[in-house]
Amino acid sequence: MEKQIWKPGTLLAPVPPVLVSCGTVEEPNALTIGWTGIINTIPPMTYISVRPERFSHSIIKESGEFVINLPTKQLVRAVDFCGVRSGKTVKKFEHCGLTAMAASQVSAPIIGESPVSLECKVEQVISLGSHDMFIAKILCIDVDESIVDANGRLCLEKAGLITYAHGTYYELGKALGTFGYTVQKKKKNKKKPQAKAAPAKK
Amino acid sequence: MEKQIWKPGTLLAPVPPVLVSCGTVEEPNALTIGWTGIINTIPPMTYISVRPERFSHSIIKESGEFVINLPTKQLVRAVDFCGVRSGKTVKKFEHCGLTAMAASQVSAPIIGESPVSLECKVEQVISLGSHDMFIAKILCIDVDESIVDANGRLCLEKAGLITYAHGTYYELGKALGTFGYTVQKKKKNKKKPQAKAAPAKK
Repeated sequence: MEKQIWKPGTLLAPVPPVLVSCGTVEEPNALTIGWTGIINTIPPMTYISVRPERFSHSIIKESGEFVINLPTKQLVRAVDFCGVRSGKTVKKFEHCGLTAMAASQVSAPIIGESPVSLECKVEQVISLGSHDMFIAKILCIDVDESIVDANGRLCLEKAGLITYAHGTYYELGKALGTFGYTVQKKKKNKKKPQAKAAPAKK
Repeated sequence: MEKQIWKPGTLLAPVPPVLVSCGTVEEPNALTIGWTGIINTIPPMTYISVRPERFSHSIIKESGEFVINLPTKQLVRAVDFCGVRSGKTVKKFEHCGLTAMAASQVSAPIIGESPVSLECKVEQVISLGSHDMFIAKILCIDVDESIVDANGRLCLEKAGLITYAHGTYYELGKALGTFGYTVQKKKKNKKKPQAKAAPAKK
C-alpha cells in the first residue's frame, strides 16, 4: 500500500469507448468518444465531451443531436479507426463498413452494427478547457432484436461489449457477481409449493 | 439488424463502478458510483452524479471534496456492498475491511486497497432531476507502487480492474488492440542500427 503522488490526469478506467454518430443518414459521420457517462437517471441523461477542433464538433453543435452506439468486439477496428482519423479526410462509415440507419427521434443516424444505440438531444454545452461537454437527454433507445429474448428481456451479455483502459481495448471477461449479491439472502433449499395445490384432506 | 425502439433509459455500458470516498480519515465513508466519467482533459476534470438522498451527498456537498478509487476484482465485494448499503446504518470501511489513508491534497481519505485514487475538488453542482452532478477538478492521483515498474511506467493491466454492465460486474478480458493500432504502419523487419557505430573505413 505504498503510494506515489502523480500529477493530475485523466486516469479514470475502464471507460466505454463508444461510437458516436452524427450528421444524417445520407451524410453520416462517426467518432469515438471515451469521455461519456450517465449523469442522471430520471430523466435519463448523458454527456459526451468533444474537442472543438474535431470535425464532428460543429455538426453536433449545429444539429443539437447525436447517437451513442455501444461498442462490441466485432466493432473494435471501427472504434479504433474512428478515434484516430477525421471525417474531414475520410468517409468513416464507408471505410469501416458501417451501416447508417434512420433513427427514430433524431436526424442523426444510428450505426446498424451496434447492438444498442441511444438517441440523444443536446440540452446544454459547457466549455471546460480542451473539451466542450454536450449535456443531453436520452430520447429513446434502439435495441437490436438479436439481443432480445422471446420474453422481451435484454440479453446484453450476448452483445460482446468492449471496454477501454489506459490505451487498450478489452473484451469483458469473467462475470464476478450481480448488483446486490453481497446482501442477498441465501435461497432456502426448499421445494416450491405447487400452484393451487388442493389442501390435503384429513 | 432489426431494431426495437425502447423507451429512454440509462443503458450506457460498460461503466466503471468506482468506489468514491469522502469524509475524513477518522470518519470515512464510501459509496459506489457508476455515473462517472472524464469530462475534460486540460485541465483534467471528472464528475460523479449522486442522488441527494444518499448519505454521502451532504458530506460531499459540504466538504467540496471526494476521491475516486478505481475498482478491482479484489474489491468487488466492497464495490457491491457500498452500492447497496448506506453509511447511515453501517461503517462501510470497517465492514468491508477498507483502509482509510490520508490523501495528499484533500481531507477525504483514499482507499488504500485501490490501485489508483483520483483526488477531486468540486467546482460546480448541477441538479438534473434524480441526481446532482458534482463537476470536479482532479488535483492529483495516488498510484500504488505495486503497479509502477522500475522505469516509472504505470502497469495498469496488472491492477485487475473491473467494469459493470447491465447489473453484472466483470473482469477485463482479452486485450483486443491498443489505441491507434488500425492505422499504425507495420514495423519493418530490420535490425536496429548500432548506437554510434563507427562508419566503415574504406
